[in-house]
Amino acid sequence: MEKVASAVLFPCKYATTGCSLTLHHTEKPEHEDVCEYRPYSCPCPGASCKWQGSLEAVMSHLMHAHKSITTLQGEDIVFLATDINLPGAVDWVMMQSCFGHHFMLVLEKQEKYEGHQQFFAIVLLIGTRKQAENFAYRLELNGNRRRLTWEATPRSIHDGVAAAIMNSDCLVFDTAIAHLFADNGNLGINVTISTCCP
Amino acid sequence: MEKVASAVLFPCKYATTGCSLTLHHTEKPEHEDVCEYRPYSCPCPGASCKWQGSLEAVMSHLMHAHKSITTLQGEDIVFLATDINLPGAVDWVMMQSCFGHHFMLVLEKQEKYEGHQQFFAIVLLIGTRKQAENFAYRLELNGNRRRLTWEATPRSIHDGVAAAIMNSDCLVFDTAIAHLFADNGNLGINVTISTCCP
Repeated sequence: MEKVASAVLFPCKYATTGCSLTLHHTEKPEHEDVCEYRPYSCPCPGASCKWQGSLEAVMSHLMHAHKSITTLQGEDIVFLATDINLPGAVDWVMMQSCFGHHFMLVLEKQEKYEGHQQFFAIVLLIGTRKQAENFAYRLELNGNRRRLTWEATPRSIHDGVAAAIMNSDCLVFDTAIAHLFADNGNLGINVTISTCCP
Repeated sequence: MEKVASAVLFPCKYATTGCSLTLHHTEKPEHEDVCEYRPYSCPCPGASCKWQGSLEAVMSHLMHAHKSITTLQGEDIVFLATDINLPGAVDWVMMQSCFGHHFMLVLEKQEKYEGHQQFFAIVLLIGTRKQAENFAYRLELNGNRRRLTWEATPRSIHDGVAAAIMNSDCLVFDTAIAHLFADNGNLGINVTISTCCP
């Protein structure tokens, strides 16, 4: 029976939304995790919004269900996070539009280690992982003769922010550093997006 | 009696080594903490070396008592920290010589918060706080489409590293980030020193 199963190819569970792959049963779960036809979840941080849909529907979902998110145009903007001293886990979110794409900027404050609050900042592309490879982003904190800079490839919203935060694969800083750069409890993060060699 | 004391000026306790200030008794402790005539302690991190002496004697102390510290010449060098996975609190130290000055590069791994190991990297000038103001340094971690950069003013060895680490006023990163940038357990930190406007 094992032998038969290993010779049989099964369709990906996202066949109905467009995936034409057939796979060995051992390869199926791994593929389905990253399958580009897997529905997109709402990219807003926190698990409160349960929306799922196609990539093309994400922006209109955000504009209708999350109206309070500000959008700025341009490749070089300032992401201003207000009241960074608010207690507990907090998310700051905004959108940046440039190069014909929409990017989501997320600053998350959380206590990954007990008694030690940290900030995590990251840029997501409203697009596929493959599209994200064509861009680079830079996050910059500027203060009194000090500068902290993180440069990386945007994440696709298909991957989301949770894994990046878990692996510290983003700009990470603690409350002491936040205070070095904040002005009256508000933190300005310079965000620059660029295209990179294909 | 209080009134008399407040009208009397006392010499700084470093008068014998050159300080000519006289101060109210209320101002004395604060001044003596930062007095430029206060003896310099050995700048090596960790409290094991108890040497104290003048600024002019620091380099010869280091060369004789801490022979194992490597020195590299030039304003743009790589500080290679080997075996960053060694358990417990560890310090990596090297010297960089440029612009006619000696700089000490320190990478310290410690558990400031229980169960959460962090790395702290900083550049110190073997010189006074005033001399340090004339320089800027950049520490850069470069990896697979990622870069983390910290730019600041070097600390004088008169101030030491402990306060900077306490306030996170240095390049701070956790073990997950270290692994993003390390190669086979070794972490290369690009260090660039520059002079800045007087």
